[in-house]
Amino acid sequence: MTASNSNMEIIEPQNVKGFRDLLPRHAYRKNQIISIIKRVYENYGFLPVETPALEYLEILLGEYGEENTKQIFRMKSPEEQDVALRFDLTVPLARIVAQYSDLPKPFKRYQFGSVWRADKPDPGRFREFTQFDADVVGTSSQLAETEVISAVVKALREIGVGNFIVNVNSRKVLNAVVKYSGVPADRSKDVFRILDKLNKIGMHNIELELTKGRHDVSGDFIPGLGLSDANVSKIKDYLALPKGDREKVLGEITSLLGEESCSDLKDLDVFLDAVGLDSNIVMYDPTIARGLDYYTGPVFEVNLKDKPQFGSVAGGGRYDNLVKRFTDAELPAVGFSIGVDRLLAAIGESEGDISFADVVVTIMERDKLDEYLKMATELRTAGIRTDLYLGQEKGLRKQLQYADRVNARIAVIVGSNEFEKGVVTIKDLKAGEMVSKDAAQREEWLKKSREIQREIPRRDLVGELKKLFNLE
Amino acid sequence: MTASNSNMEIIEPQNVKGFRDLLPRHAYRKNQIISIIKRVYENYGFLPVETPALEYLEILLGEYGEENTKQIFRMKSPEEQDVALRFDLTVPLARIVAQYSDLPKPFKRYQFGSVWRADKPDPGRFREFTQFDADVVGTSSQLAETEVISAVVKALREIGVGNFIVNVNSRKVLNAVVKYSGVPADRSKDVFRILDKLNKIGMHNIELELTKGRHDVSGDFIPGLGLSDANVSKIKDYLALPKGDREKVLGEITSLLGEESCSDLKDLDVFLDAVGLDSNIVMYDPTIARGLDYYTGPVFEVNLKDKPQFGSVAGGGRYDNLVKRFTDAELPAVGFSIGVDRLLAAIGESEGDISFADVVVTIMERDKLDEYLKMATELRTAGIRTDLYLGQEKGLRKQLQYADRVNARIAVIVGSNEFEKGVVTIKDLKAGEMVSKDAAQREEWLKKSREIQREIPRRDLVGELKKLFNLE
Repeated sequence: MTASNSNMEIIEPQNVKGFRDLLPRHAYRKNQIISIIKRVYENYGFLPVETPALEYLEILLGEYGEENTKQIFRMKSPEEQDVALRFDLTVPLARIVAQYSDLPKPFKRYQFGSVWRADKPDPGRFREFTQFDADVVGTSSQLAETEVISAVVKALREIGVGNFIVNVNSRKVLNAVVKYSGVPADRSKDVFRILDKLNKIGMHNIELELTKGRHDVSGDFIPGLGLSDANVSKIKDYLALPKGDREKVLGEITSLLGEESCSDLKDLDVFLDAVGLDSNIVMYDPTIARGLDYYTGPVFEVNLKDKPQFGSVAGGGRYDNLVKRFTDAELPAVGFSIGVDRLLAAIGESEGDISFADVVVTIMERDKLDEYLKMATELRTAGIRTDLYLGQEKGLRKQLQYADRVNARIAVIVGSNEFEKGVVTIKDLKAGEMVSKDAAQREEWLKKSREIQREIPRRDLVGELKKLFNLE
Repeated sequence: MTASNSNMEIIEPQNVKGFRDLLPRHAYRKNQIISIIKRVYENYGFLPVETPALEYLEILLGEYGEENTKQIFRMKSPEEQDVALRFDLTVPLARIVAQYSDLPKPFKRYQFGSVWRADKPDPGRFREFTQFDADVVGTSSQLAETEVISAVVKALREIGVGNFIVNVNSRKVLNAVVKYSGVPADRSKDVFRILDKLNKIGMHNIELELTKGRHDVSGDFIPGLGLSDANVSKIKDYLALPKGDREKVLGEITSLLGEESCSDLKDLDVFLDAVGLDSNIVMYDPTIARGLDYYTGPVFEVNLKDKPQFGSVAGGGRYDNLVKRFTDAELPAVGFSIGVDRLLAAIGESEGDISFADVVVTIMERDKLDEYLKMATELRTAGIRTDLYLGQEKGLRKQLQYADRVNARIAVIVGSNEFEKGVVTIKDLKAGEMVSKDAAQREEWLKKSREIQREIPRRDLVGELKKLFNLE
C-alpha cells in the first residue's frame, strides 16, 4: 500500500473558491453561539426540525427573485433529476408544513444549518453559510411577528453582540408606495429588490437602477427598470420619511399612504410595547425592503450600531403565500433568520481566551505510558477536561509548548523521580504569564513561582485539581 | 402578488429520493445526542473544526476505493470546476492538516456534520447522514487509538445506547493474511472490501466474490476476484480464528501469521487495560476489515449487542498515508466516526416523552393580547420554557389540544372572569392523564381534579410555576 502511495503526486490542499474552513477558535465560538440561540428558542417554545441539503429544483424555483435564482447550486441526482442545494431554510419549511399535515398548528419551528449561494465570492462573503431560523406557520396575527422578533432580540442579547437595532417595515406599506408613485403593480418586486440595496449602493445608484440603469464597479451594465422621473420623485418622497420612533413613523406613513397601508405595523407596535421592546431597540424604517420575492407583510433586519460595515446580521418577514405553492391549505407564516457566520465575523472569533483543555498530562517516561493513561482517565472521570500528550516528543519543553497551543491551564508532570517518590508535579501555566521577571519584581516572582509549580502526593491529584477548577 | 400566486400550479411537496426530514421529536433527540458527544470529546481535549460541504473532486478521489468513489455526488462549481459533496469527514481533515501547518501537533479534532453518498436508497439507508468524528493526526503511537476508542465508548455510554461492543482488528494483520494465503499484494484492498461484507452477506457469498463472482438479490452480477481455492482456503483458516478475549486472539494470530503482524494490537491491548477497557467492551475480532481503502493499521467498529440488524453504528481506524496525498510532512493519523443517524434509528427517537414547552399561555380575550404577551414574557424571563398560543382558534378546547401536541405540562388560562378578579387558572395537563374517571375512583379523581386546575393570584404566577418546575 505504501508503494502505490509513494508514487502519487501531491495534490494541493485548498478550498473550493468561495468556501472556507473554520479552525478551532472559530468553530468553538460558533458552537457557543448556536447553543445560546437554541436555548433561547426552546425557551420560547420553538420546535426543532432538520431538512436535507438537497431539494428538487422545482421546489426552490420561483420565490427568491430572478437574480437570486441564478445563484442556486444545481446538480443531477443519481436518478438524473434536477436537484439543488438549499438556498435558505424558509422554502424547505414551506415544503414540510405542506408535506406533513399532522404537525401542530400554528407550527413554531427552529432550524439551523448551511445554505448555499453561488454568489460572487468576496472577502467575508462565502458561498456556504449557516442560518439559524425561527418561524411561525399558520397564523396571520402579528403576535407571530412579535414572537420571532422578541426571540431574536433575546438571543442576540445573550450572545452579547453589542448595540444593535431591529429595523422594521412592511411590504404592505411598500405596495402602497408603488401604487402612490404610479408604478405598475407587476413591477413592485423589482422595485423592492432595488430599494433593498439602498444602504449598500446609495440613493444616486438606486435612482439609476429605477430609471435608465448603471454600470457597477466591475463595469457590468445593470439595466434600469425604466420608471419615469415622476415615479421616482414620489418614491423619493416616501424614502425621505423620518425613521425611528414607531408612533411617529406610523403617523407619517398614514398621512402619505393612508391608514390601511400600515394596519399590520400598528398591531405590531402595540404587541412590541407589551413585550418591553420600545423604539430604541425595534424601530420602524421606511427604507427597509428585504431582497426576497416571497415576503408579503412586515419585514425586518438587524443591524449592529457600532459595526455597520457588516450589513444586516439577521433578516426576515411575513410570507403568507409561500406555503400555497405546495398545498391548498391556508398557512400564512413569518420568520426571522440569524446569519450566524456574519455575526461571528462581526463580534470576532472570541472575546476572551478559549482554552481547549483544563489539564495536559505530559509524558516523561515512555515505559510507563499506562500510568499516564490512568491519570488522564481519572481526571476526565472527575469532569476535568484533560488532554494527554500523544506525540513523540520526549522533552518537557516541547510538550509544554503543546499545552500552550491548546491553551491549557495546568500541566501534570511525572518523571522517574516523581514516580519513585509517589508524587506528581502540577505546573500552573497561566500563573506564569502573570508575573514578569524584572529584577525589581524578583522577590514577588520567586514567591509566585512556588505557586506556579508544586509537588503533591499522587493520590491527591484529582482532589487538588477539582478544587482548582471549582468542581467540588 | 396574490394574482401571480393564485395562477400557480401546486408543486408536490416531497423529498429528493434517498433524502428525508427530521421532524421535531427526531431532531430534538439528535441534538441531544450531538450535545453529549461534543461534551465528552471536549472532556478528552479534542478541538472542533468545520469544513465545507463541497470539496474539489480531486481532493476526494482515490482513497475510498472504486465502488465507493462511484457514490460521490459530483457537480460543477460556478467556475466550471469539478467539485463534489464530501463523502466523509476524514479526507477533509487530511486536507486541512496539510493546508494549515500551524495547527497544534498532534492535532486532536472533533467534527460533526452531513456527508453524502449516492447509494442505492433503502429503507433506513439515506443519501445524507450525520457523522461525528474524533481523530488524532501526527502520531503513530497506539496511545492515539486508545484515546479515540475510549472517547467513543464514553460517549456511547453517556448517550445510553444499551449493550455494545467495539470490535477491533488491524490492516497489518490482514496484510499478513493476504501474504499467508498467497494472494498478490496489489489485490489486498479488494480482498479487504469483500471481507468487510462478511456480516451482511455471509461466508458463502464471500467465497463467491473472492473467486468467480455472484449475482446479488437484484440480479446484478458482481464479478469475482478470481482467487484460487488454495488462496480462499487459507483465508478461511484465518477467518475461523476465535474472536473475543484480546490476549487469546493475539496468541492465535501470532501462531498463524507471526509476531510482527499484530505488534500494534499488542501495544493497544496494554493501553486499553490502563484506561479500564477489557475484552468485554473492546474485543479483537479477526473478521473485521472496514470498507475504505485508506486504512493502514488498527480498524474498529461498534456493534449493538441487542440490535445487530442496525450494523455498525461507529467505525474507524488508522490511516497513516492519507495526509501524504496533500503534503510531504509525515502525519500518521487515526480516527473514529459515530454514525449519528444510525444510532438515532437504533435507540429510537426518544426513550421518554419529549416536552417542547413547560407552559402554554392560552388566549381567551382577544382584546387583551398585550396581557398574555406580558405573562409569557415574565415566565420566559424566569427560565420557564413558555409557548404562547398564536393561532386564531378562540375556544379553550382547541387551544388545550395544541398544548397537548407540544406536550406542555401546564396551561395558563385567563378569561374575562379571571381578569376581573385579578387571578389566573393553572391547569396541570399531565396530572389529568394519571387519573382514570371510573366510578370506583371518582373520589380520588375529584380530589385530584382540584390539583389539576386551580386559581391563583395573578401576581403569584411566576413564583408558583418556578416552584412547580424546581427553578428556585
